[in-house]
Amino acid sequence: MFSDFDRLHMQHALALAERGLYTTSPNPRVGCVLVKDGQIIGEGFTQPAGQDHAEVCALKDARSRGHTPIGSTAYVTLEPCSHLGCTPPCANTMIEAGISGVIAAMVDPNPQVSGRGLAMLHNAGIEVHCGLLAQEARELNIGFISRMTRGIPWVRLKIAATLDGCTALPDGQSQWLTSNASRIDGHAWRARSCAALTGIGTVRKDNPQMNVRAVLTPRQPLRVLVDSRLNVPLDSRILSGIPPLIVCESDDGECAHRAHFLRKAGAEVIALPNPAGKVDLQAALRMLAARGINELHVEAGYRLNGSLLREGWVDELLLYIDPALLGNAIGMFNLVPPLVLDQRIRLRYHSVKQIGEDLRVLARPVLASASDNLSHMGDARS
Amino acid sequence: MFSDFDRLHMQHALALAERGLYTTSPNPRVGCVLVKDGQIIGEGFTQPAGQDHAEVCALKDARSRGHTPIGSTAYVTLEPCSHLGCTPPCANTMIEAGISGVIAAMVDPNPQVSGRGLAMLHNAGIEVHCGLLAQEARELNIGFISRMTRGIPWVRLKIAATLDGCTALPDGQSQWLTSNASRIDGHAWRARSCAALTGIGTVRKDNPQMNVRAVLTPRQPLRVLVDSRLNVPLDSRILSGIPPLIVCESDDGECAHRAHFLRKAGAEVIALPNPAGKVDLQAALRMLAARGINELHVEAGYRLNGSLLREGWVDELLLYIDPALLGNAIGMFNLVPPLVLDQRIRLRYHSVKQIGEDLRVLARPVLASASDNLSHMGDARS
Repeated sequence: MFSDFDRLHMQHALALAERGLYTTSPNPRVGCVLVKDGQIIGEGFTQPAGQDHAEVCALKDARSRGHTPIGSTAYVTLEPCSHLGCTPPCANTMIEAGISGVIAAMVDPNPQVSGRGLAMLHNAGIEVHCGLLAQEARELNIGFISRMTRGIPWVRLKIAATLDGCTALPDGQSQWLTSNASRIDGHAWRARSCAALTGIGTVRKDNPQMNVRAVLTPRQPLRVLVDSRLNVPLDSRILSGIPPLIVCESDDGECAHRAHFLRKAGAEVIALPNPAGKVDLQAALRMLAARGINELHVEAGYRLNGSLLREGWVDELLLYIDPALLGNAIGMFNLVPPLVLDQRIRLRYHSVKQIGEDLRVLARPVLASASDNLSHMGDARS
Repeated sequence: MFSDFDRLHMQHALALAERGLYTTSPNPRVGCVLVKDGQIIGEGFTQPAGQDHAEVCALKDARSRGHTPIGSTAYVTLEPCSHLGCTPPCANTMIEAGISGVIAAMVDPNPQVSGRGLAMLHNAGIEVHCGLLAQEARELNIGFISRMTRGIPWVRLKIAATLDGCTALPDGQSQWLTSNASRIDGHAWRARSCAALTGIGTVRKDNPQMNVRAVLTPRQPLRVLVDSRLNVPLDSRILSGIPPLIVCESDDGECAHRAHFLRKAGAEVIALPNPAGKVDLQAALRMLAARGINELHVEAGYRLNGSLLREGWVDELLLYIDPALLGNAIGMFNLVPPLVLDQRIRLRYHSVKQIGEDLRVLARPVLASASDNLSHMGDARS
């Protein structure tokens, strides 16, 4: 259905979309290329929230270059929006501009759009196709899709570990386990995220700032701290700079005093208790999604990592593997092993790349189907 | 110094050498290509011990094809031998054949050769060059080089682990952690090794055969069991088939009876005690090298892995990483963590490859130089 010519232009649109990696949230990263008579006449990508979407940028670009978009074909990495948000619906704008064809990589997962944009274009007589390089487009907006379809952010858990799975010495030493190249790469993942979350254990041990420093970004992610009993020391680095969001189990009773001081120091404090007297992680994720958090970057320790994994909230493991061995030190997850090997938490490799002296592994949990479990049952020895 | 033409022929010679991967030991894997007037007139690779070396095979091949080797250039992956072993010196044979040029990938590390072969050729008026694709040639005979230069085999430690560094459940379950593709790949590494070593812990837990089954090989590696007190059950699989070699700490006193039965069952039993009442691993490695073991494949458990690593005998880690998580289970090495992170055992990645659903990592320990340690000292937090 799609030609190499189409593919080339969509790849170009995807590359444009990526230029909004650090800036478009809570909106998706979208790129648009306008092609007329075999030539690119305009291109653009989504600007920070409240400003122009990719389609409008491309139309403006074409006009500023002296071209008329009438009769052109638009390659867009996401279905043009059909609803009035901070900006007018792009589908309308494209119809008014006289565009004759639209090729979209994927349908907008936003339930307010979800095909309506393409339908509007089609009904206006525009030739519409969808699905070109859809997988690549989905990856680019995996957080936005998660928020739109599941009501929670895409949770990416970053861990630096040795080849034998250790993240820290028994006394807690863990900094500088991986190389500087990995640190920079890790900050790039932080930068593309809408929020960076850590736990009280990590704050006490490493006292991280949790902001983006190693790469240039015009926008810092919201910093989120999970701290059940509000034990964060008032001189912690995470309390400096743009105020963080602290999620606790209680902000009254014996926590009221600490909550008061934290709020006075600028932090937002939200109590989301679960019946076990801990932070309700699901409620925290829903709250973050409600605030427009698409990708959530987690850099926490053994305990919070374990809780997130056990409860099934980890969508992706971003693992930097230092080619070293530490032996009987602290592992990645506080997790009780299963009774049989077949019940281990399974993932699949999404990408593997050498970063400096380290290995960067992206892996995603897979849900074993019941039949899968049955077919492997014979392998386990009890 | 070397042309693309030379490089192409040496690559061909290396590919030929690799055909002896499972068969040449204790001899090195060598390939030879004879080129005359820009054409390959003969080629060959080292045959099993006592039979023809690569150079002789190539000469015979040339003659059987109706060519005379006079005036040809030989591309060999290792310096032609100069000494009378089971076969006559290849350098002599090449001189007698009238070869006019020799390009070798590397000097023979055998102290009985070590440049003498090339010198003989040079003194006979043959144009001799050495060093083309030397690194590739070294990798192919890394075990032979180790035995010749260090008097111990190249020790390759195979481990199957999860992404979080677990090798077994707390109750010992460890089989089928990695995929079938990894099992086959692992057997290929076993097959190229001269010996496959395991420990009594693994025998008791997994009862492995330790032979090569998943790939075709005309030669089974010697099976070696480290069993300090000769506690191996007489019905263990490792005692069936071609008799194994058992290294213990003592074969007299209370072990004499067990040693007697094991010997009666065909096993060779050797006592190599160290002062701590365990097997002297260095002595065991020297003994194996003295028997012509080039590459030693180790598949052991947490304890023996830890001992080999602590004592510095591991040259290469062959790690199959199952994309799964097990949590607080059994790790790779029984190893006390260092006091500061900078003292961790460092490795470097040699190769990383996806095998089926798993990741195969080859990593080699690196010795940090003193200056290296000093320059990183500031990173460690105490």
